[in-house]
Amino acid sequence: MSGTLYGIGLGPGDAELMTLKAARLIGSARVVAYPALAGGESFARSIAAELLADGVQEIRIDVPMVVDRAPAQAAYDKAADEISAALETGLDVVVLCEGDPFFYGSFMYLYARLSGRFTVEVVPGVTSMTASAAALGLPLAARNEVLSVIPGPLEDEALKVLIAAADSVVIMKVGRHLERVRRAIEGLGLLDRAHYIERASLVQERRMALAEAPQKAPYFSMILITKGADPWL
Amino acid sequence: MSGTLYGIGLGPGDAELMTLKAARLIGSARVVAYPALAGGESFARSIAAELLADGVQEIRIDVPMVVDRAPAQAAYDKAADEISAALETGLDVVVLCEGDPFFYGSFMYLYARLSGRFTVEVVPGVTSMTASAAALGLPLAARNEVLSVIPGPLEDEALKVLIAAADSVVIMKVGRHLERVRRAIEGLGLLDRAHYIERASLVQERRMALAEAPQKAPYFSMILITKGADPWL
Ligand SMILES: C[S@@+](CC[C@H](N)C(=O)[O-])C[C@H]1O[C@@H](n2cnc3c(N)ncnc32)[C@H](O)[C@@H]1O
Ligand SMILES: C[S@@+](CC[C@H](N)C(=O)[O-])C[C@H]1O[C@@H](n2cnc3c(N)ncnc32)[C@H](O)[C@@H]1O
Repeated sequence: MSGTLYGIGLGPGDAELMTLKAARLIGSARVVAYPALAGGESFARSIAAELLADGVQEIRIDVPMVVDRAPAQAAYDKAADEISAALETGLDVVVLCEGDPFFYGSFMYLYARLSGRFTVEVVPGVTSMTASAAALGLPLAARNEVLSVIPGPLEDEALKVLIAAADSVVIMKVGRHLERVRRAIEGLGLLDRAHYIERASLVQERRMALAEAPQKAPYFSMILITKGADPWL
Repeated sequence: MSGTLYGIGLGPGDAELMTLKAARLIGSARVVAYPALAGGESFARSIAAELLADGVQEIRIDVPMVVDRAPAQAAYDKAADEISAALETGLDVVVLCEGDPFFYGSFMYLYARLSGRFTVEVVPGVTSMTASAAALGLPLAARNEVLSVIPGPLEDEALKVLIAAADSVVIMKVGRHLERVRRAIEGLGLLDRAHYIERASLVQERRMALAEAPQKAPYFSMILITKGADPWL
C-alpha cells in the first residue's frame, strides 16, 4: 500500500492562520516537502516550523527563478521522484504550501506529476487574498458583485480591460510591476480606490493607499481595488 | 474601555478547516453572534458549536430571505444594537461567519454599522471557493492566469462576457439559477470544462461534472470552470 500525498495550505504567513487539519497533519508527518527559492529560506517551511516533529525527513524543492522553464521543470521532476520513493514505501508525504495549494500555488506542479499514480488529498488554506482584505478592513465582494484576480505581469491593455470589467479586483505578483500597474489603475481613474499591502499577517506587514506605496514592491505583495458601486445593505 | 468586535471566518463547513486563531477566539468568547436564515438553523453556529463555552451569550441574527431590502436592514440594525450594548460593557463579541467574512459574507453589514465606533478585527477563513477546488482536485489558477468570481444571479449576457474573459471561473450562489447558468456555459462551448459541487467539505458533499448536475441546486453550491489553456509546468 502506497502512502497518501497531502498538499497542505498553510495560510498567508501567521502560523495561527493555519487550519486545525493542517496543524494535525503536519504535526504527525514523517516526511515533508516544500519549495524554496534557490539557495534561500523556504517561506512555507518557516510557517510550519514549530509543528515539525523531531527527525522528520525533509524534501527541499529548490526552485530556480529564471524565465526559462526547463530548470524549474527539472526541479519538480526531481522532487516528484523523491516524493514517489517515499510514498512507495508506504509513508505519507505532506507538501507545505503557503496560502492555498490551488490558488496560484506551486503544488499543482507536483499534483500534475503524481496524482495519476498516488492518492492525493488537498487541504485548502486561507489565501493571501482574503488575509489582505481582512488586514486592510476591506470587504472584497458582496451580493452580485464580480471579483477578478489578476496577475500583475499581464500587459497594460489586458490589465485595463479586466480591471474595468470587475467590481473588485485583486492584483497578485505585483513586485517589480508595481509602477506600471499603478499607472494603469490611475489611467482608469481608480487610484483613490486602490490599496497596497505587503507580507499580510506577518509582523513585517505594511499596508497603505496605493498612491503612497513604494516604487518597488517585494514578491509578497498585492493590490486590492474595490469600486464600492453597490451600497452596503 | 469598549470590547473588540471580531469577524471570524469558520471555513466552508468541516470544523477542522477552521484556523487555530478562530478556534482560540471562539473557545474563549463570552458573547457570540451569528446569522441564521429566518426560523432555520444557523450554518455558522453549527460549524463552531463544539467550541462554544458553557453559558456563552448568543446573539442570533434572523435574516429574512426576501427581495425587499428593508427587512434585512432592520435585522442588521437590531443585531448591531445588541452587539453594541455588549461591546460597551467591555466584552468582546465574536461574530461567526461561514467561509471568509469578507468574501461574499454578511459580516460586512455589521462591519459597515460598527467599524466607525469600535475596534474591529477580521480573522480570515478558508473560502468555499478553494475548498471546492481542493475537493474537485482542480487547480484554480497558476502563473499569469486570470480568475473571476461571478455570482450566478447575473444576467446571461454579463455572465457570458465575464466567463469568456477569464482563464478560470467560479460561479457562486448557483441555487435556482443552475439551469440557466449551465446553458450559458454550454453556449460558450465550455460545458466539458465545468464542474459542480455542493456542500463542499461536509459529509453531505456531492460533486460531479456540471453536465450531470441536478436541475435545481441547493444554496450551498458552486460551479468551477478551468479552461486549462496554459499547460502545466
Ligand atoms: C505564487 S503566489 C501564491 C499564492 C498563495 N498560494 C495564496 O493562496 O495566497 C504568490 C503571490 O501571492 C501573494 N502573496 C502571498 N502571500 C502574501 C502575503 N502574506 N501578503 C501579500 N501577498 C501575498 C503575492 O501577490 C505573491 O506574489
Ligand atoms: C453568501 S456566500 C458566502 C461565502 C462565504 N463567505 C465563503 O467565504 O465561502 C454563499 C455562497 O457561498 C457558496 N458556498 C458557501 N459554502 C459552500 C460549500 N460548503 N460548498 C459549496 N458552496 C458553498 C455558495 O455558492 C453559496 O451560495
